[in-house]
Amino acid sequence: MKLYTYYRSQAAFRVRIALNLKGIAREDTYLHLEKGDQFDPAYKALNPQMVVPTLVDGGATLFQSLAILEYLDETHPEPPLLPREPAARAWCRGFALINIADSHPLIVPRIRHYLLDEMQWSQEQLMAWIRRWIGAGLEAMEALLAAHEQSGRFCHGGAPTLADIGLVTQVTPARLFGGDLSLYPRVMRVYDTVMTIPAFADAAPARQPDAE
Amino acid sequence: MKLYTYYRSQAAFRVRIALNLKGIAREDTYLHLEKGDQFDPAYKALNPQMVVPTLVDGGATLFQSLAILEYLDETHPEPPLLPREPAARAWCRGFALINIADSHPLIVPRIRHYLLDEMQWSQEQLMAWIRRWIGAGLEAMEALLAAHEQSGRFCHGGAPTLADIGLVTQVTPARLFGGDLSLYPRVMRVYDTVMTIPAFADAAPARQPDAE
Repeated sequence: MKLYTYYRSQAAFRVRIALNLKGIAREDTYLHLEKGDQFDPAYKALNPQMVVPTLVDGGATLFQSLAILEYLDETHPEPPLLPREPAARAWCRGFALINIADSHPLIVPRIRHYLLDEMQWSQEQLMAWIRRWIGAGLEAMEALLAAHEQSGRFCHGGAPTLADIGLVTQVTPARLFGGDLSLYPRVMRVYDTVMTIPAFADAAPARQPDAE
Repeated sequence: MKLYTYYRSQAAFRVRIALNLKGIAREDTYLHLEKGDQFDPAYKALNPQMVVPTLVDGGATLFQSLAILEYLDETHPEPPLLPREPAARAWCRGFALINIADSHPLIVPRIRHYLLDEMQWSQEQLMAWIRRWIGAGLEAMEALLAAHEQSGRFCHGGAPTLADIGLVTQVTPARLFGGDLSLYPRVMRVYDTVMTIPAFADAAPARQPDAE
């Protein structure tokens, strides 16, 4: 499969983890989001949102990281990214969506640029914004893990799921932007577990060929 | 099923549409988000993010609207919210995620309050922010519909899917906040189609008993 990616993108990070877990070989095309590669008309025709990742699998052009993860789980069921029972699947999806649909959309490049360039925020104001919303998501994740009997080394059960993928892409920007992670011991226990797994570790931003 | 809801919440609107499409009876509990009902400790114990919706189905407490929609589709398969073929499912999910995971998280109450109260933005600055990001999502949706051979009266195929639900909760705030919808004729064709369907129309914010 062909992946359009940028090393620092948390959304591309999620898809790299899933491809690695499934053992799917990929060919990367690198876009430098800070240099504006995503606004190239040829890429816009592929991905009208002008964001990464895009995954091309034969004739299918796939966009939005969660839609890609679900597609990979449907077309390559082993190992599963979700448990079997519907309520457990919903818990894992809901947990991941705290990152994917609440925290992360607030700190992507287009938002940071708008706040800095158009609203003339200082770096300090931007960092306070990022830490506030990443922290709110981490707090919710910590509370969910505390209340969830099937959490432990992983968010749910004995193997990584979509929930762990969302947890990793919540913690990674928190580290990058200097959040206090000691407040979230359950989250960090899971993070430390999964980042020893090659599928996760090899997908990390710093390990990508386009990392600076 | 028991739904914790607020009439103006776009996320609760999505869940109301899906419950109506599936013919599932619900009992509503109303939270007034502008009055802070979501911060009540009893509700925080149910939903650590302190947001709506929460859906309770027997012993399962479900959170995050997209996780709830997928749960409803798994436990009540008819009528389906997604097509059968994996690439088509991914297209519908990806389309909906433009609303759920990109546009909508930027305009929820906590963000509006932060920008107005903590950053002292003017109403005009807030409206420019909302229109910018809702507009970016609508533009991407219009381009996706234009390129998608199976779109027409609905986003995909001959019946409503998750994509149409995401489209409706993109258009509704655009109308509320005064965006120019004439720029998106394909989006509006679908909106006008689905809003004639009772499952959609009855779920609209203005039709809820807690509407002001």
